[in-house]
Amino acid sequence: MAQWVYNFAEKSGDRSADAARLLGSKGASLSAMASLGLPVPPGFSITTEACRWYYEHDRALPDDLESQIDVALQALRRATGRGFEDARRPLLVSVRPGSRAVMPGMMDTVLNLGLNDRNVEILATETGDRRFAYDCYRRFIQMYGDVVMGVDHDLFEEILDDAKADGGHEQETDLSVEELEALIVRYKALIAEELEEEFPQAPRVQLTEAVKSAFASWMSQRASIHRSINHIPEDWYTAATVQCMVFGNRGAESGTGICFTRNQATGERGVYGEFLLNAQGEDVTAGIRTPRDITEAARIATGSPYASLEKQLPDAFGQLKGHADKLEAHYRDMQEVEFTLEEGKVWLLQSRAGKRTARAAMRIAVDLADEGVTTREEAVLAIEPGMLDQLLHPTIAEGAERTVIAQGLPASPGAATGEIVFTPEEAEKAAAQDRPVILVRVETSPEDVHGMNAAQGILTQRGGMTSHAAVVARGMGKPCVSGAGMIKVDYKNHLLTAGGRTFRKGDIITLDGGKGQVLAGRVAMQQPELSGAFGTLLEWADATRRMGVRCNADTPKEARAAYSFGAEGIGLCRTEHMFFEEDRITPMREMIIADTEQERRAALAKLLPMQRGDFIELFEIMAGMPVTIRLIDPPLHEFLPHEEEDVEAVAKSMGIDADRLKSRATELREFNPMLGHRGCRLLISYPEIAEMQARAIFEAAIEAGRKTGRQVTPEIMVPLISLKRELDHVKGTIDTVAAEVEKETGVRVHYQVGTMIELPRAAIRAHDIAEVSEFFSFGTNDLTQTTFGISRDDATQFVPSYEAKGVVDRDPFISLDLDGVGDLMRIATERGRDARPGMKIGICGEHGGDPVSIDFCESIALDYVSCSPYRVPIARLAAAQATIRNQTRSS
Amino acid sequence: MAQWVYNFAEKSGDRSADAARLLGSKGASLSAMASLGLPVPPGFSITTEACRWYYEHDRALPDDLESQIDVALQALRRATGRGFEDARRPLLVSVRPGSRAVMPGMMDTVLNLGLNDRNVEILATETGDRRFAYDCYRRFIQMYGDVVMGVDHDLFEEILDDAKADGGHEQETDLSVEELEALIVRYKALIAEELEEEFPQAPRVQLTEAVKSAFASWMSQRASIHRSINHIPEDWYTAATVQCMVFGNRGAESGTGICFTRNQATGERGVYGEFLLNAQGEDVTAGIRTPRDITEAARIATGSPYASLEKQLPDAFGQLKGHADKLEAHYRDMQEVEFTLEEGKVWLLQSRAGKRTARAAMRIAVDLADEGVTTREEAVLAIEPGMLDQLLHPTIAEGAERTVIAQGLPASPGAATGEIVFTPEEAEKAAAQDRPVILVRVETSPEDVHGMNAAQGILTQRGGMTSHAAVVARGMGKPCVSGAGMIKVDYKNHLLTAGGRTFRKGDIITLDGGKGQVLAGRVAMQQPELSGAFGTLLEWADATRRMGVRCNADTPKEARAAYSFGAEGIGLCRTEHMFFEEDRITPMREMIIADTEQERRAALAKLLPMQRGDFIELFEIMAGMPVTIRLIDPPLHEFLPHEEEDVEAVAKSMGIDADRLKSRATELREFNPMLGHRGCRLLISYPEIAEMQARAIFEAAIEAGRKTGRQVTPEIMVPLISLKRELDHVKGTIDTVAAEVEKETGVRVHYQVGTMIELPRAAIRAHDIAEVSEFFSFGTNDLTQTTFGISRDDATQFVPSYEAKGVVDRDPFISLDLDGVGDLMRIATERGRDARPGMKIGICGEHGGDPVSIDFCESIALDYVSCSPYRVPIARLAAAQATIRNQTRSS
Repeated sequence: MAQWVYNFAEKSGDRSADAARLLGSKGASLSAMASLGLPVPPGFSITTEACRWYYEHDRALPDDLESQIDVALQALRRATGRGFEDARRPLLVSVRPGSRAVMPGMMDTVLNLGLNDRNVEILATETGDRRFAYDCYRRFIQMYGDVVMGVDHDLFEEILDDAKADGGHEQETDLSVEELEALIVRYKALIAEELEEEFPQAPRVQLTEAVKSAFASWMSQRASIHRSINHIPEDWYTAATVQCMVFGNRGAESGTGICFTRNQATGERGVYGEFLLNAQGEDVTAGIRTPRDITEAARIATGSPYASLEKQLPDAFGQLKGHADKLEAHYRDMQEVEFTLEEGKVWLLQSRAGKRTARAAMRIAVDLADEGVTTREEAVLAIEPGMLDQLLHPTIAEGAERTVIAQGLPASPGAATGEIVFTPEEAEKAAAQDRPVILVRVETSPEDVHGMNAAQGILTQRGGMTSHAAVVARGMGKPCVSGAGMIKVDYKNHLLTAGGRTFRKGDIITLDGGKGQVLAGRVAMQQPELSGAFGTLLEWADATRRMGVRCNADTPKEARAAYSFGAEGIGLCRTEHMFFEEDRITPMREMIIADTEQERRAALAKLLPMQRGDFIELFEIMAGMPVTIRLIDPPLHEFLPHEEEDVEAVAKSMGIDADRLKSRATELREFNPMLGHRGCRLLISYPEIAEMQARAIFEAAIEAGRKTGRQVTPEIMVPLISLKRELDHVKGTIDTVAAEVEKETGVRVHYQVGTMIELPRAAIRAHDIAEVSEFFSFGTNDLTQTTFGISRDDATQFVPSYEAKGVVDRDPFISLDLDGVGDLMRIATERGRDARPGMKIGICGEHGGDPVSIDFCESIALDYVSCSPYRVPIARLAAAQATIRNQTRSS
Repeated sequence: MAQWVYNFAEKSGDRSADAARLLGSKGASLSAMASLGLPVPPGFSITTEACRWYYEHDRALPDDLESQIDVALQALRRATGRGFEDARRPLLVSVRPGSRAVMPGMMDTVLNLGLNDRNVEILATETGDRRFAYDCYRRFIQMYGDVVMGVDHDLFEEILDDAKADGGHEQETDLSVEELEALIVRYKALIAEELEEEFPQAPRVQLTEAVKSAFASWMSQRASIHRSINHIPEDWYTAATVQCMVFGNRGAESGTGICFTRNQATGERGVYGEFLLNAQGEDVTAGIRTPRDITEAARIATGSPYASLEKQLPDAFGQLKGHADKLEAHYRDMQEVEFTLEEGKVWLLQSRAGKRTARAAMRIAVDLADEGVTTREEAVLAIEPGMLDQLLHPTIAEGAERTVIAQGLPASPGAATGEIVFTPEEAEKAAAQDRPVILVRVETSPEDVHGMNAAQGILTQRGGMTSHAAVVARGMGKPCVSGAGMIKVDYKNHLLTAGGRTFRKGDIITLDGGKGQVLAGRVAMQQPELSGAFGTLLEWADATRRMGVRCNADTPKEARAAYSFGAEGIGLCRTEHMFFEEDRITPMREMIIADTEQERRAALAKLLPMQRGDFIELFEIMAGMPVTIRLIDPPLHEFLPHEEEDVEAVAKSMGIDADRLKSRATELREFNPMLGHRGCRLLISYPEIAEMQARAIFEAAIEAGRKTGRQVTPEIMVPLISLKRELDHVKGTIDTVAAEVEKETGVRVHYQVGTMIELPRAAIRAHDIAEVSEFFSFGTNDLTQTTFGISRDDATQFVPSYEAKGVVDRDPFISLDLDGVGDLMRIATERGRDARPGMKIGICGEHGGDPVSIDFCESIALDYVSCSPYRVPIARLAAAQATIRNQTRSS
């Protein structure tokens, strides 16, 4: 026979995780507190397994549940001397749903259960407070009627408002006993009228119905949506806790509040929190009365006119502080404690890890370790790496007023305010005049990069989390909102329509890249603060992690930023981004429209010194750390102008015939450029491009080595390999150039040639390719595109609806698809290292900065992850966590 | 110590394949004939391993090769009484390179080696024919000078022409002994002058150099190109045979010729062939003299004025016929025998499987089995399945004159002649007037299908073997030349420029789809003949094969054709092709531009009866055999007009605003449509489309079942699945419709829901998907695209150059990439059947009609292949061969 019911004092499993799984986090916390000897109102939990049974049996309760509840109620009677049918000491309980996940406000509580027409009188007699008793009954009927019986909450509120108005009262607390009795009559009539059913008088029936209702709340629309947003599995189910009532509304030495064991905003040590005198929990939530500070220090700091708990009720404060210390010591983390003060005695209702800002989280984790409460490993594990984002970008000030005019994707975090511009040229012009601007585009392309660089932030109408705009913006550390489908960009008339309003060029808007919001006007900002704890924690992470952390950096500016964030080299330098700069795009285009190899070589010769210069700078910045340079990747048509008028202008500036330019662009046009003539395919068609790039790399390595006195060992990465023979070809070209450069300069450059693994075939044939390739780097953006057959540029057409319909849990372009893409990576790693034992393997797709993906990379023993500069700290932390978790997994 | 040299009589391995690998096919054939006791001039082979050693050691011969050759020469002396230095009986030999593969004319022979200034005199004395001896010497110096020493062939010919002119002779045979002696002096002088080196007099040196030259010829440009075209691996290397000379130029009872054991054009039984009297082999090749028929019957048939061998030299004919019979019996196949007649005695120089037409091949295979020479299995294995193509389409008549104006890809076999038209509308108009036309397009799209259907053949400037034009044309069984990059199509002026000529609309051209040629004007055709042997062979194939053969058919016409070719059901019916027909495209477009689900449903309701009608017809034609219907696959924008003017016209005909149409088209535009909003992604976005299609299928199944009296069990195939949950969704929709239809009609339809495996993720997660999917069908076109990351529409930009540079051996869109795509298929099959044992799995990509791919499908135990109707017979044969080979492999 299954055990469906656990008293709080009963052990439900070996680890607290087991307890939470079975009893919900609230039930588990009550059990834990009870076993610590802390003052917890007695009670019991009904398990999540009972809830599973309920859903698997057409919403019926297990047969033996009622008898187990009866046994638990008998135990309560022994502990408290109270019972539902007791003539002098009536039992009142709360019934609360609660799952493993904390879902605040998602599922409704019922308080004061057990009251009826008879018990209310007994309670009045027992407490000597008739008004209190009838107030409890009134509240109970209202809650039960709403939550369990399903009568619209507002109908009760209307009646309550009428009663107040009739009595000429402002507040509920002003209602007299008689008025409350009349109100109860009207509540009961409302229920009878709405449901053709009476409010149940039998407490045991009330309890059964409340438990059913707690289970049913798991599938409420509200809860379902919350689960789907927060990726909480449906089959976790909910438990229900049944607990003796304690009352915070029993007078001047009663109250209710929440206490944090440390400051949740700063992480400072010492209890902290708020409470309401003479109130029940729901009054706190309602926010009608202003809560008081718990400590006197906080009262002074906030300048509150109300006495603090510490001052007013020092004994209660002392109890609370003692409990708080005990709880933090037990849980070894900052706790958020719900308490009720009943006539001078503190009762604890829940304790859980307290919510905190990123800054506080850092400080708390470091302090707890320094205090010897936790280990440094635990400190490293304590921080959700994604949180660090908050610390690395300016953000909208807390509490600032927001006029949201559109919602898009949170493509690149941070906030920015500026004038609207619609073209990269305008952005550059404004930047030259030091005017901050937001570049607004339908979508961006490589031609827009200079304008993106000049702007404070980027807003696009189309494109996903890994669209061009998003990727480039993240690389630049600039805020970006992408795929804001509800805005309309009218280039011709320089208009942006959003949120029913029309903005002109020059109007001010603000982007919140962390939330994906577009806001009207200027909004207050706060600057990032890298507190000392932040640095300490990353040091500890570095001491722990096995994998290296490199950066994806194409420019000296990005490389410097990444270096300052602790990058240990460059894992991906996309050389083509260098070709879009103003002085380079013209020779690049000359190269593309060349009719002969000779013409092509002439154009490439102009690009050589520029590329060499770029590489020298990158090598110098990275000061002997590894730099992986990817040879040209995109199809050539990306470098040509697309629009008719641009073609004319470019042709004119190049001094060539517009028709020639147009016809070359048409020739190069592709149906599916993503699957087209790019990467190594270009390098094989035009080996002279590979020659120029290899030469620039080798000459730069020699020059930078001379300047810095450290040997530079460039890693040359060939993109889009699917066949070993492709790599044979390109490596042949590179090796030839290396020999030439050595002959010319007398200096031998040490280098490695490797490949991106970004096509399924390369993963499957990794053992062939590893015969030639000296390292691998997973290009998981393209690998995800080809494995799923989804173009990331077009994915916004259906991936959001896939998430909404539950077809995918997470956008696979943000978090690695471990089952599919991940399995290919595992296969590639195994096969590659079979052929070349110990081969260096990394990841340089966008996933290299995603903690879940980093965890996976550790599990398949990659050597490093590489991510955009602003995610380097996140990756350092995530890699450390992955190391610890992996050790745990494998031990 | 390695054995580099084998006498013909020596055994070199257990199987003839071993012999051919080591000795080349010529060496192996000489060995075999020697061991049969047939008259073979004695000699020896130097192995391909010696050639490998030569290339692996910087073109040096193995140290011990010379001594092994000396031993072999001693054996020759014992057998013939001849030696290089013998004073009375000089040894003359031929040296011939020859690999496992037959590479006619690719590598050069040296005859009469051993002659020098001394031996020529001895030969003159021995034969009593001084002119003969000097003619041999003259020929030898010329060949040796050219082939071994590398003096330009033409320089010798010039001298020879001079000598003829000086003597006033027309023919070489008219040269006197003295003139020949003078010619030899001039030849030697030429060599000395060109090379500053004398023609070598020592026969043993001549031999060593000739062997080296034979090995070197393997890497000649000519041989390399031949290998690359014919997919012959470089590391097969060549052997060299050294063989005593026999002379066909020793008078009226001497000669040389080629004899087939059966007729190579018709397959008829009985020897057949040609010979030249008093000639050496090279005279036959030169083609100066008209050869005579071997049999009298053939002489009569051809009306030749020259006596046949049978008539003129009946004894020699008798010898030859005896040898031929023996050889055919030994090899159990029709043989092509090279022979030399020396003074009345027939010597055999080579015997190999004779070249034959497809028709002859069929007849011979069936006859040999009927005669009991071979088994039926051997007969089935004897035919290269691709050959059948010749028999299934009208073709250009043999010997017809061709004016090739452009070369493209042989996209769909057969030949067609017609007027040039440039638009599908013109094609339809012409078809209505019974005027045959060739539709010429830059590329085709689904909108052109009605015009393609009306045309006799299709020519496109762009697109590969699996471009839209190619795939549709093959489906229709119409000739198509695609990707003829050298033509220029000028739609505006209705001009086609090709081969330096300009053709107007209405001008006549001819396509040879089997060769990929475009020919000017009208060319004579021959109609396909399905001889009785063809049918017999396919019956035997059907009795042998394990896999089923279905067809890819979208229309009743295609289904009927496939049925007549023996298809056992439909493996792929692409429902979207049905939407392009004139009466359907308008409701389809209404559906696409609909703003609401209601509008969409209204448009779909118009399509329902038409789809139902199509399915009824297909089910009736297939008469109870399985029919797999794929739900809609392409992105919706494919159904909308692209060009500005088309948009106007369509909008007008639909009675809607052109701007609305345009704006919807823009909304739907995709960067990479191949990876876009299509397949199951559409069906999830617009479940009402799936509902309509499922309803049409179920209602048609009921109706067709009623009409034919046979239960129809449709297989509904969901395209582009990468996640199990996608299939859950779509299957849910289908199942709901099935229940509705059952409720409405009272008839239960039996059906299966399965999926295409056409994305790498689906292959990797086949075990998940198989939990829901009742069958799999590999969509290898898309699977190849995504596995390689190559768009087949753009592949022509670089795949041809990949083939040319040896980066790929074969276009992976034509022949499955077994290592990569194949490995994914293997993984998917294993994982899928792990989850659903015995699951039915097929292939419906273009590869389903490719013999090499079919062989692979057998090896991974697929249940059936599905291919275009005209490839069904090929697939039947290939599947049978695969069954036999797989049994051999696994036994």
